[in-house]
Amino acid sequence: MSERVKKFKEERERLNEIVLARENLNIKRFFGLDSAVYRDGALDAKTKELLGLVASLVLRCDDCIAYHVIRAKELGIGDQEFDEVMSIGLVVGGSITIPHLRRAYRLWEEMKA
Amino acid sequence: MSERVKKFKEERERLNEIVLARENLNIKRFFGLDSAVYRDGALDAKTKELLGLVASLVLRCDDCIAYHVIRAKELGIGDQEFDEVMSIGLVVGGSITIPHLRRAYRLWEEMKA
Amino acid sequence: MSERVKKFKEERERLNEIVLARENLNIKRFFGLDSAVYRDGALDAKTKELLGLVASLVLRCDDCIAYHVIRAKELGIGDQEFDEVMSIGLVVGGSITIPHLRRAYRLWEEMKA
Amino acid sequence: MSERVKKFKEERERLNEIVLARENLNIKRFFGLDSAVYRDGALDAKTKELLGLVASLVLRCDDCIAYHVIRAKELGIGDQEFDEVMSIGLVVGGSITIPHLRRAYRLWEEMKA
Amino acid sequence: MSERVKKFKEERERLNEIVLARENLNIKRFFGLDSAVYRDGALDAKTKELLGLVASLVLRCDDCIAYHVIRAKELGIGDQEFDEVMSIGLVVGGSITIPHLRRAYRLWEEMKA
Amino acid sequence: MSERVKKFKEERERLNEIVLARENLNIKRFFGLDSAVYRDGALDAKTKELLGLVASLVLRCDDCIAYHVIRAKELGIGDQEFDEVMSIGLVVGGSITIPHLRRAYRLWEEMKA
Repeated sequence: MSERVKKFKEERERLNEIVLARENLNIKRFFGLDSAVYRDGALDAKTKELLGLVASLVLRCDDCIAYHVIRAKELGIGDQEFDEVMSIGLVVGGSITIPHLRRAYRLWEEMKA
Repeated sequence: MSERVKKFKEERERLNEIVLARENLNIKRFFGLDSAVYRDGALDAKTKELLGLVASLVLRCDDCIAYHVIRAKELGIGDQEFDEVMSIGLVVGGSITIPHLRRAYRLWEEMKA
Repeated sequence: MSERVKKFKEERERLNEIVLARENLNIKRFFGLDSAVYRDGALDAKTKELLGLVASLVLRCDDCIAYHVIRAKELGIGDQEFDEVMSIGLVVGGSITIPHLRRAYRLWEEMKA
Repeated sequence: MSERVKKFKEERERLNEIVLARENLNIKRFFGLDSAVYRDGALDAKTKELLGLVASLVLRCDDCIAYHVIRAKELGIGDQEFDEVMSIGLVVGGSITIPHLRRAYRLWEEMKA
Repeated sequence: MSERVKKFKEERERLNEIVLARENLNIKRFFGLDSAVYRDGALDAKTKELLGLVASLVLRCDDCIAYHVIRAKELGIGDQEFDEVMSIGLVVGGSITIPHLRRAYRLWEEMKA
Repeated sequence: MSERVKKFKEERERLNEIVLARENLNIKRFFGLDSAVYRDGALDAKTKELLGLVASLVLRCDDCIAYHVIRAKELGIGDQEFDEVMSIGLVVGGSITIPHLRRAYRLWEEMKA
């Protein structure tokens, strides 16, 4: 596991614990729903991960992109599939997504090393 | 074809003609690229359409959503697949997407009639 | 009830029925959560409505703004409170919110008539 | 003056009156500032109008775009200058701006007729 | 005062000085307006801070969120009130706000320590 | 050249290499188009850079802003022109752009040192 991925997962885990320690019912329900929509259904989890990835790219959320890039790699998405998701996000969202797309590719390549 | 779909396609066609009549090279190149990224590749056109749909929903662009809803139906996307794309877009983009999601479902149901 | 409010409520109701007729569990859960967060709690429903209103204004969602403007009036928000929410939304979101702010005021004034 | 421009200006005027009738100091100050930044300075009013236009396009605000398209025409912006602003907005903001770009061109062409 | 709050305030102060040293009238007027809208009025400063906080969360601006989180704590907002603002922002803005919500809670908890 | 500018350019270069090493045709075409729209035309490159800058500010993309601030300085934009672009972006995009505006000014002033 790359250093960046490890650090990302640890921080995410640590901050999630802070949020969930508040025991706020509505926030917990949202987090549950956020997991539920990516589970296998009529569309498989792999396709859903790509949907999450492209949505994160066009909304330009680095942490969300990193999360879905890692998940995409874990689910066996290939290089060309990744390129095509990035291309669609780039065309839909415009050049303003490029800084995020660059960091997505850096993470993607690091995970292959 | 539903009245709404027909009207949407006609207006889209008519306005595209106005834009492209300007013969601006960069705009033409963008339009070409916008078609290219949705063609069959490592991911099939159907999956790419769903990527375009979820990106349009989270960016809350009614015309873009309508375009991809129509294309999704033409490519044979089923009801449950559609629901799952809508669910991901809703969770990623929040309640602010709901007015767009409502209009997406209205169009989807009208195309089935 | 103003004509605009009546029409807004009817269309909203009609489209919600189309969405909920799909019986998609995750979408239903989201809709439930969307109601839950505005209920009286440590903050009263009135304050929460204003939070929903300012969020809708800065995100520039006309239907969301209309919904919260109507609710704000129903909950007894006064003119000056309304002005102050609009002012904060305008300063946070910039001149790009002005077309939405104009329509919010039109609806607000029509409801007083 | 095209019918669309006339209708746009009348509605804008009418709704501005509703907003300003409230005599809210902060909203008035914002409206004043919104006029001030487009006046001739180190950059001329024409260039500033183009800055307002491209900002409105990438933020996808139809009313803001229409306002700046009309102003750009009134200030003597030419077809090629207009094309180039549109191209930059399209590349920065992505395909999601296309529906707005189409309507901007429709208005632009109607004003030439 | 937590180390993070201290560092945030110092950087904010230092950069504001750079901006305001330019003596640009319109930017100064905007900064003045930005202070004015949060002052006690028909709504008290506390409620207005919460409006600023939720607007910042849905617009996903970390620095703006940090500023309003610190102000909310200084004005005596309680844990449950904070949770409810976060919940509304999360539902309105969707999962894309979660990385910002996590950092908001980290800051909130650090200020209690 | 300031340390920040140097570091920015190196990272940008390094990450662009990772992206372009993928040899993805559509991404390459987009990057080509992204260069093309800023070249001298009916509007000169200097004006186009300001269009890119204001678009980046209202979309709140730090890397995009930094890129255009550096380019604006290289093309000889003066202090007052820079102020006026910042003012328009601030008024259009609202207080939510302020953290980005602060960093833009810091970079601008560092380049003068």
